[in-house]
Amino acid sequence: MAIILGSNRYGKAETRLVRVTRDGDTHHLKDLDVSTSLSGDMEAVHLTGDNSAVLPTDTQKNTVYAFARKHGVDQIEDFALLLARHFTTSQPAVHHARVEIEEYAWDRVPVTGHSFTRRGGEVRTCVVHHDRDGRVSVVSGLKDLVLLNTTGSEFRGYAVDEYTTLPPTTDRVLATAVHARWRHAGDTPSYGDSYVRVRDRLVAAFAGTHSRSLQQTLYAMGERALAECPEICEVRLVLPNRHHVAVDLSPFGLDNDNVVFNAADRPYGLIEGAVLRDDAPDPGFAWE
Amino acid sequence: MAIILGSNRYGKAETRLVRVTRDGDTHHLKDLDVSTSLSGDMEAVHLTGDNSAVLPTDTQKNTVYAFARKHGVDQIEDFALLLARHFTTSQPAVHHARVEIEEYAWDRVPVTGHSFTRRGGEVRTCVVHHDRDGRVSVVSGLKDLVLLNTTGSEFRGYAVDEYTTLPPTTDRVLATAVHARWRHAGDTPSYGDSYVRVRDRLVAAFAGTHSRSLQQTLYAMGERALAECPEICEVRLVLPNRHHVAVDLSPFGLDNDNVVFNAADRPYGLIEGAVLRDDAPDPGFAWE
Amino acid sequence: MAIILGSNRYGKAETRLVRVTRDGDTHHLKDLDVSTSLSGDMEAVHLTGDNSAVLPTDTQKNTVYAFARKHGVDQIEDFALLLARHFTTSQPAVHHARVEIEEYAWDRVPVTGHSFTRRGGEVRTCVVHHDRDGRVSVVSGLKDLVLLNTTGSEFRGYAVDEYTTLPPTTDRVLATAVHARWRHAGDTPSYGDSYVRVRDRLVAAFAGTHSRSLQQTLYAMGERALAECPEICEVRLVLPNRHHVAVDLSPFGLDNDNVVFNAADRPYGLIEGAVLRDDAPDPGFAWE
Amino acid sequence: MAIILGSNRYGKAETRLVRVTRDGDTHHLKDLDVSTSLSGDMEAVHLTGDNSAVLPTDTQKNTVYAFARKHGVDQIEDFALLLARHFTTSQPAVHHARVEIEEYAWDRVPVTGHSFTRRGGEVRTCVVHHDRDGRVSVVSGLKDLVLLNTTGSEFRGYAVDEYTTLPPTTDRVLATAVHARWRHAGDTPSYGDSYVRVRDRLVAAFAGTHSRSLQQTLYAMGERALAECPEICEVRLVLPNRHHVAVDLSPFGLDNDNVVFNAADRPYGLIEGAVLRDDAPDPGFAWE
Repeated sequence: MAIILGSNRYGKAETRLVRVTRDGDTHHLKDLDVSTSLSGDMEAVHLTGDNSAVLPTDTQKNTVYAFARKHGVDQIEDFALLLARHFTTSQPAVHHARVEIEEYAWDRVPVTGHSFTRRGGEVRTCVVHHDRDGRVSVVSGLKDLVLLNTTGSEFRGYAVDEYTTLPPTTDRVLATAVHARWRHAGDTPSYGDSYVRVRDRLVAAFAGTHSRSLQQTLYAMGERALAECPEICEVRLVLPNRHHVAVDLSPFGLDNDNVVFNAADRPYGLIEGAVLRDDAPDPGFAWE
Repeated sequence: MAIILGSNRYGKAETRLVRVTRDGDTHHLKDLDVSTSLSGDMEAVHLTGDNSAVLPTDTQKNTVYAFARKHGVDQIEDFALLLARHFTTSQPAVHHARVEIEEYAWDRVPVTGHSFTRRGGEVRTCVVHHDRDGRVSVVSGLKDLVLLNTTGSEFRGYAVDEYTTLPPTTDRVLATAVHARWRHAGDTPSYGDSYVRVRDRLVAAFAGTHSRSLQQTLYAMGERALAECPEICEVRLVLPNRHHVAVDLSPFGLDNDNVVFNAADRPYGLIEGAVLRDDAPDPGFAWE
Repeated sequence: MAIILGSNRYGKAETRLVRVTRDGDTHHLKDLDVSTSLSGDMEAVHLTGDNSAVLPTDTQKNTVYAFARKHGVDQIEDFALLLARHFTTSQPAVHHARVEIEEYAWDRVPVTGHSFTRRGGEVRTCVVHHDRDGRVSVVSGLKDLVLLNTTGSEFRGYAVDEYTTLPPTTDRVLATAVHARWRHAGDTPSYGDSYVRVRDRLVAAFAGTHSRSLQQTLYAMGERALAECPEICEVRLVLPNRHHVAVDLSPFGLDNDNVVFNAADRPYGLIEGAVLRDDAPDPGFAWE
Repeated sequence: MAIILGSNRYGKAETRLVRVTRDGDTHHLKDLDVSTSLSGDMEAVHLTGDNSAVLPTDTQKNTVYAFARKHGVDQIEDFALLLARHFTTSQPAVHHARVEIEEYAWDRVPVTGHSFTRRGGEVRTCVVHHDRDGRVSVVSGLKDLVLLNTTGSEFRGYAVDEYTTLPPTTDRVLATAVHARWRHAGDTPSYGDSYVRVRDRLVAAFAGTHSRSLQQTLYAMGERALAECPEICEVRLVLPNRHHVAVDLSPFGLDNDNVVFNAADRPYGLIEGAVLRDDAPDPGFAWE
């Protein structure tokens, strides 16, 4: 029996990058959190501490800032691809690069051309892989998009065992914080346009589906995005069920026909699933 | 020497209340976090554990939900006043009630009349006091409103001592997460209208002020709100200076004339101040 | 009517300072979060942006690090006093300094003299004030000390109104996350010894009190600390009631005599109170 | 082209369970956060909202509490196995169960037999899988174990490119928050004993390794645990490099030979890797 090194990677996480572009008195703002991660010939550093194959994480951070200055930042997927390609093509020991970016949206304050307010709400994300053979994957996504329907949601007809006490319902609040990621099938002409399209389909399907379960809603969201966005081939969704419990007001002589709710914290239902085209190409390392 | 009880209060914190109002197929949503707190004849409970003067915090929570059902929820200040008045007028041992509410905004998804997405961005707040003699105070506010100017901000001419290394600058990014509270002078006809007015003045003053220091911006924000919103008499602001540090790219042969920034986490400058009318009435317990 | 500047202060928050002291191969570690805040002649900076009275927050941060190097760090109260005195005596425009410190404890790993593991649990705190007339106050404290009694706690005999549904109980779990601050009466010879003494009394009183309400426990904690620690004159406690709700298992044919609990998140009771000696000196600015 | 359902699961996340065991006046406390997740015949619920195969997440929560009452809770791995076996053997539509548990440690307060203080520091974890064919996997672990060496760490001899500015060092602080998971090779007689053994080896290897890189330390930690704990066959570690940057005090005429550090927040290095026996059985679903 021997002890061996398994899969591994290393990098710089959460480099906070804000980039300003000046178009006369009208400024533009990009606000990103960039995490880079490399793997390759890393036996020596693990077994003996020989760092000769290690590009320091500090250098990775510097590269993020320098590339933002040299190349600008438009769509996060394009910026991630640029970085990933750089690391795999410039460092022989690096066989694979993974770049993850989060983007925080800002709205313009119409008082000047240089004033902004951070939007809040959902965060746009991407994860890009690039290996030294030129294989590439792009997964786009969003998180913290909180959606709620005040009606149009049932939950009944479920399996019952000796530990079941939940009464069935034909009308409940359905709320979730969407964490969605979608895999691009090939070259997507505009990641910005694609993001808007997919995001809109997810929201529209959540709102427009009469839901008999959050699983049904999950599938409807993925299906809608895939049906109307041919550039993507798979959607993965993680949907916490943010339970809104109608408060029992009968001790106070009051009815409560879905009027007053307690928004509960924990525990919560958690629904996870993938929806994909049956001809989707093999994902390879896309979801790592 | 004897040991005595000092000031004290007790209550239920963070009752999460979501209320739905149905106007045919068009629903309306209120999403609140309500904290109530009472004080009065509380010697016995502290010294001997005699609870006869204690209205349980569980009862306070029930009251929040029951009142939301009976009276509805429109402006958070009005709902807080209703609750505070109830506690001080219905319980002889309760001499004083403090009610604090946070409100989370939702936007309508235009697919149905019952679908919403949580807006993110700033949280609206209020703190209301009501004592058994009918004295009342109302403080409205907001938090987590993140503002940024990409230019129009200087910092120079400051005091220098042996520990000063900061170079002066005539052009920097200025960013902050506004925590603002403002005291109403008397009866405000519409807390909703007032909120929009004050919030807009704070944002406009931040954006429109050529800033030589964050203190100057703070004062300008308070002054603008007071000058244009006669219903309020004092503004208190807490402004963390979210430092955006221009990255030194010279080792890579690149200039960086306020293009690429590191958004730093800690430490951060913290500027706190009050701006008020010289004829503002005594605040009494308003800020407790 | 005119608009005027009210009370204000500014400073550098959350300077993270780790200091290592080497005693041969045995090292010692201090891990602090330091926030400094100054006030004084600050009309000009607020009204016109004239920074000549402003010692930059960056300079304050530098001072923290330089003082840690020059003077070392032993008890946080002493280090805070050193900093506060420096700011008020070296800068004419600074009339008042407030220094707040949090300390994170580490345990030695007995493999080497230089290895440590962060302890977790409670955080030690202090807030020190120093004005230009040499007036000083010292408040020590702790936060995030989570205590729980599995029995020995009742809650009954409370006021009842139309919104009361809580049943009385003679045996419940009582749990809280202690946030305590205590004011020193004068010069305390050893803040380290004092901290251990007060912390132990708070814990012992929580554990040893048969509790009829959390208010009673709060008072007992403050009283015990004051009775046995003559160097302090006032204790302020904030005690969230971390509700542990016995789960109703009767639908499954199971009893549950305080065996299985749901540790609830929100809402929670919140009990706040001060306990003090009747001859305690006036607090002045100590609690600001 | 058709759209299809991919892999999916659903369950109840973060059921907070506190269990008290009474041994006369000496009580024992278990404090857990339990997440259960099921998968199986779930086409219908996703595609049509037919819930007949769905055991509600509310039922899963009830089962956690009922099992804690009926069977008690000793080691979290055993409790997770019990739950997972129940779900896969009692529900025909459930083909696979995954149970994840976090355990928070408490220390006894020696004043009574029923008083405790929450320890803080690391959280013990496990993830257990059980499928309907009786295949089982057990992964134990810990998170939030913060370790620091004040010396005995170098970083030099690394790859250099045009974006490298980091100077090499032969003496630095090395700190990390360990997130470790280890896979059991078969039936482990005592998960409690095993946890103590593995945890001690991880700490001892971190402390005792003269580190030329965090990768080397990672490997040493995994190797030590595997070498001395035959019941486990693979260790996966995620080690953020909590950078402690020696502050440049030369502007103030002060040296700083690793005495005063800024504990930085972001960005941070992130080192991830697996260490395993070469004869480790196939992990199957263990790491999902």
